[in-house]
Amino acid sequence: MAGNSFGKVFRITSFGESHGPYVGVCIDGCPAGLKIDIDFIRKKLQQRRPGQSGLTTSRTEREDFQIISGVFEGISLGTPITILIPNEDTITKDYDQLKNIYRPSHADYTYDVKYGIRDHRGGGRSSARETVARVAAGAIAQMLLHTAGVVVFSYTRKIGKLELAVEPDSIGLKKIYTHDTRCPDLEMADKMSEYIREIKAQGDTVGGIIETIVTGMPAGLGEPVFDKLNADLGKGILSINACKGIEFGSGFKAAGFKGSEHNDIFINQDGDIKTTTNHSGGIQGGISNGMNLVFRAVFKPVSTIQKTQATLNINKEATDFIAGGRHDPCVIPRAVPIVEAMTSIVLADHLLRNKLSRIS
Amino acid sequence: MAGNSFGKVFRITSFGESHGPYVGVCIDGCPAGLKIDIDFIRKKLQQRRPGQSGLTTSRTEREDFQIISGVFEGISLGTPITILIPNEDTITKDYDQLKNIYRPSHADYTYDVKYGIRDHRGGGRSSARETVARVAAGAIAQMLLHTAGVVVFSYTRKIGKLELAVEPDSIGLKKIYTHDTRCPDLEMADKMSEYIREIKAQGDTVGGIIETIVTGMPAGLGEPVFDKLNADLGKGILSINACKGIEFGSGFKAAGFKGSEHNDIFINQDGDIKTTTNHSGGIQGGISNGMNLVFRAVFKPVSTIQKTQATLNINKEATDFIAGGRHDPCVIPRAVPIVEAMTSIVLADHLLRNKLSRIS
Amino acid sequence: MAGNSFGKVFRITSFGESHGPYVGVCIDGCPAGLKIDIDFIRKKLQQRRPGQSGLTTSRTEREDFQIISGVFEGISLGTPITILIPNEDTITKDYDQLKNIYRPSHADYTYDVKYGIRDHRGGGRSSARETVARVAAGAIAQMLLHTAGVVVFSYTRKIGKLELAVEPDSIGLKKIYTHDTRCPDLEMADKMSEYIREIKAQGDTVGGIIETIVTGMPAGLGEPVFDKLNADLGKGILSINACKGIEFGSGFKAAGFKGSEHNDIFINQDGDIKTTTNHSGGIQGGISNGMNLVFRAVFKPVSTIQKTQATLNINKEATDFIAGGRHDPCVIPRAVPIVEAMTSIVLADHLLRNKLSRIS
Amino acid sequence: MAGNSFGKVFRITSFGESHGPYVGVCIDGCPAGLKIDIDFIRKKLQQRRPGQSGLTTSRTEREDFQIISGVFEGISLGTPITILIPNEDTITKDYDQLKNIYRPSHADYTYDVKYGIRDHRGGGRSSARETVARVAAGAIAQMLLHTAGVVVFSYTRKIGKLELAVEPDSIGLKKIYTHDTRCPDLEMADKMSEYIREIKAQGDTVGGIIETIVTGMPAGLGEPVFDKLNADLGKGILSINACKGIEFGSGFKAAGFKGSEHNDIFINQDGDIKTTTNHSGGIQGGISNGMNLVFRAVFKPVSTIQKTQATLNINKEATDFIAGGRHDPCVIPRAVPIVEAMTSIVLADHLLRNKLSRIS
Repeated sequence: MAGNSFGKVFRITSFGESHGPYVGVCIDGCPAGLKIDIDFIRKKLQQRRPGQSGLTTSRTEREDFQIISGVFEGISLGTPITILIPNEDTITKDYDQLKNIYRPSHADYTYDVKYGIRDHRGGGRSSARETVARVAAGAIAQMLLHTAGVVVFSYTRKIGKLELAVEPDSIGLKKIYTHDTRCPDLEMADKMSEYIREIKAQGDTVGGIIETIVTGMPAGLGEPVFDKLNADLGKGILSINACKGIEFGSGFKAAGFKGSEHNDIFINQDGDIKTTTNHSGGIQGGISNGMNLVFRAVFKPVSTIQKTQATLNINKEATDFIAGGRHDPCVIPRAVPIVEAMTSIVLADHLLRNKLSRIS
Repeated sequence: MAGNSFGKVFRITSFGESHGPYVGVCIDGCPAGLKIDIDFIRKKLQQRRPGQSGLTTSRTEREDFQIISGVFEGISLGTPITILIPNEDTITKDYDQLKNIYRPSHADYTYDVKYGIRDHRGGGRSSARETVARVAAGAIAQMLLHTAGVVVFSYTRKIGKLELAVEPDSIGLKKIYTHDTRCPDLEMADKMSEYIREIKAQGDTVGGIIETIVTGMPAGLGEPVFDKLNADLGKGILSINACKGIEFGSGFKAAGFKGSEHNDIFINQDGDIKTTTNHSGGIQGGISNGMNLVFRAVFKPVSTIQKTQATLNINKEATDFIAGGRHDPCVIPRAVPIVEAMTSIVLADHLLRNKLSRIS
Repeated sequence: MAGNSFGKVFRITSFGESHGPYVGVCIDGCPAGLKIDIDFIRKKLQQRRPGQSGLTTSRTEREDFQIISGVFEGISLGTPITILIPNEDTITKDYDQLKNIYRPSHADYTYDVKYGIRDHRGGGRSSARETVARVAAGAIAQMLLHTAGVVVFSYTRKIGKLELAVEPDSIGLKKIYTHDTRCPDLEMADKMSEYIREIKAQGDTVGGIIETIVTGMPAGLGEPVFDKLNADLGKGILSINACKGIEFGSGFKAAGFKGSEHNDIFINQDGDIKTTTNHSGGIQGGISNGMNLVFRAVFKPVSTIQKTQATLNINKEATDFIAGGRHDPCVIPRAVPIVEAMTSIVLADHLLRNKLSRIS
Repeated sequence: MAGNSFGKVFRITSFGESHGPYVGVCIDGCPAGLKIDIDFIRKKLQQRRPGQSGLTTSRTEREDFQIISGVFEGISLGTPITILIPNEDTITKDYDQLKNIYRPSHADYTYDVKYGIRDHRGGGRSSARETVARVAAGAIAQMLLHTAGVVVFSYTRKIGKLELAVEPDSIGLKKIYTHDTRCPDLEMADKMSEYIREIKAQGDTVGGIIETIVTGMPAGLGEPVFDKLNADLGKGILSINACKGIEFGSGFKAAGFKGSEHNDIFINQDGDIKTTTNHSGGIQGGISNGMNLVFRAVFKPVSTIQKTQATLNINKEATDFIAGGRHDPCVIPRAVPIVEAMTSIVLADHLLRNKLSRIS
């Protein structure tokens, strides 16, 4: 059973290879009656787009897109919404040398083992190009979430050793996309920016951490016992290329806590149930409790570096390899809208699923 | 859409409340012809069983179980395998006070918000008692994996601040279940054990980290792009009660790496493709590469502590709460076989799914 | 991928072999807050129960059952509802001769080819005993439908050549279970009854047709384009043992109609949209239109007859076979509550799914 | 949960409205390594294409198509295969009058009730135009089946009262597409053809029956208990527009049979297990037995007729309606390749699923 669909009610199917004519997505399960904001989709695709600054690959993509089904006179029909994004500026000859080689820490070898065939041009289906489909679907998901007051903020928390020390409040969060690094603390953002340029000059790459904060969360989202909200978010985020881990609320630090320190104490705040701390990250027993949803995801450094590396060819013979093509020195700035999109897709799915929890 | 099923081909459905007559699991999709080892299931249930040492709750469960379908003369029929585990030694009166209270960092409040009704006895469906179903299903999954030479080792890596410093090799891994803490380094294990007793004496609880190492992994498991092996493992593990995060290979440390340091270099080892390092944790592009699978999961301290805490009742009024019942000071030792089980369930599913990847 | 689950939102998983300890069903997706009427489940199981009259097998089953999860103080919790029905009065020795033989028009051969192993006792999983699980789940589904005013009536329309000539109105429909044949026209019912006794005396069996009429249908149920209401009903009914066909509204007679005769004309009836005829059977474009849902299903004569037949053994050698065991001369009377149950399960699923069709 | 996907392993998602830019299909789960025959897809789309003869609508569609993903150098990659078919010659103004009217026996009313919005142009998503997606996917499915020697033949069995009296053997079946009616008995085909022209001249339409015969069936396909081969075929075929019923093997005639007449007797034919008759239609216990698969599906007369009919407008007011647009007098000839396609999709799915039935 192949794995190109995600979500149960708000269900997306992603398709397309990096160097085929299109990457696309089909959303089945978006309710009828949703106003579809074309400009919002365009804005989200632009935020993910490469070639925006010295921080990202110089491959330019205008990210034109076309909605070919499911929307009529600006409103969703309740039928599948399909969005096509053409692949442009694909310089296929850059990839000719990849036909017979397994690039270190790429998916060339594992795709060959699994399928016995592989579209080597730009990584084919394993390319991060695929994530453009997620961003398009995520934009639709966000429109649905906005009708319920839910807003998703993902931002750059850490690049290499440079980590944001302060907690961004929701005002700060609105500044995320004003800086190329997607870090809302503009001072730290400048340092990160400078660091990425250094790394790039070395022909190297660097990893980082993205934090996501969701405001306006209703209590009740998440489906015990396997489709807990954190479990489905975990799957969604870990399915993004280069993601190596995810943690919710207190996360890995929870190991060092005592229960008496870690428990979030309930209080009545003007009639609403809140907690004094949020070590839970907004989820208890797999169900949202109405506090902000908070999680962090780590991304490894991009595997394609501009340095010679030892590797094997498809005949298992040792060979040297140095990458051509154009690549990001750091995936984090472009991964921010992708994490935001996947988070939105998971939440849209659970917002709809929760309509089924009770007789009414 | 409710969430009590997990897996696509090897698909389990878990059912039962903590204080109902049974917790159980139905496995649909176990192939016909598998020899079912009853003693192995019993052993796995025993490893999860409480009341084994001073480290766990004194609630005793013999963990009798009954296979009521799908097995004939010791062999799987290809029909659903259902296993019932009776709930014993349930002292329901311990839970009478819970009817009207929201325990801090428990699921009482979120279940009430979601469903408008809740079985308050022992947490009902939100109780970790549910995980006994996963361990039973995981035992069947392990039998399937063993036919392919795959062996799953989960072990205690960290309790509070006490962390194993050395890498356990596969010889060490066989010692996991010889110590109550499930730490294969027996010296560290004794320290952990002592620390848990201290915490218990304080009426408090503590968190920790479990590492999983899978040996004998075939290359090719995992289904791009959403059902990547790490994504499905992430969902499975994060769906376990109290889990706050998961990381693969280099994990959160990947943020600080450069690409030139992080890339795993391919080498030909007697005709097999291996990598010199394993920062990938055995997965590249969401597909296993034949190296050991390596990941870590963090668990928060148990929320039930033997200290008075402020909280709210169901009328949103402030009240004090001190837990009755019997509870674990540290979830880690009992979570080890649960992590092992969920890992096995995910791998069994992907082992079967991979049969479909190519024409043959 | 195995096939023991049915439905997408109201999702049932059936398990158990004919001569194992239990047949059972787990319902995942029944909303919280539904009042569970134990007596109604018992009544439905009684209606399917064998040994009630000379028309059915003399195997007696009291059909005790136990709800082991998902219901608390008489109300559904929103967690999986599992019902176990013990297998009683199983005379296994009756089946010893079946170990090595392929009974004509049974599933012995196909199960052996597929699985390489088979529980020969009473047909194991292929036995109609499995349908008791569907009736139990169907009873829960009906409770859900009743909250929306939907009532399902299945009844015996034809036995052999004996067919009900009149259309039963909804008053007649209430008489269904007053006669052993499940035919609401008591005069025809007596004829059918006599005919079945004759056939039984010959050691033979006979087929028939069951019609289903659903009143109180809301418009809007059914999910284009593959999960049309008729498509999902078709699957559900055709999955019942011995069913050979299904037709909706005008059914197979539609071949001989002209469009000008067949079209159902819309009229405004006191503000409600109705049609003057109902050749559509209450479904247009795969979605219910608010008229009565009407369909018919045909069942073949029971394959087990009390006559000697030629067949093959598992070594593909010709042999003679005469059935032991106790069997129904006509499956129709007992299939009526099964068809009713499967119809209810499909409708409950679509009633819930339709909650997701629009933004609200 | 919306319903635009079908199949579990070989899983198709259909999208697109009649008068949007494209109708398309995404196939997830086609194994890697399948040779994709572009001409075969073209041929199948041509067979469904309107405007081929006086028997069908004069709307002309060249049925160009584009495979935009999943195929590389003529071979399937194991990634999603997406096919787009542009909508051409769409005369939208023909449909302006439909905006405010509910056409008799169409889906206008039910779509409005369900979604609160509807693309009225040519029926939007409810149009039979959608089936072009099924034919494209069915062509891929057939390529997969051909690797296993399975061949699907659907043909026109009945138009109005005109029914083929003889059984077409497999030689006759090859003649299906030589006649516009898709009836392999050319004498009867001419009569049917003449009859359809008569009906068309009257501005009326007529229904009919399509029979499907599958040769080369392996034994073992079908997944008890709900995903029986007949159940999944039933769902697939009943999901085709205008289909009112389906029957397998003896079908509705089974009601009048005795068991002693109906049972198919097993014989050993040169070492293979066969049956002397095939009342079972090639399926026993929901699993194929290696005999030809045989079923019939009935289609109602097309609802759009060139006669004035009474109906309601969207304000529930009585009005007269006469159709503009171009429509088929009989759906049967064009439904033949659609039935063939859906049959192929179901069989491809079960061919793959059956790989999972046993340990090996």
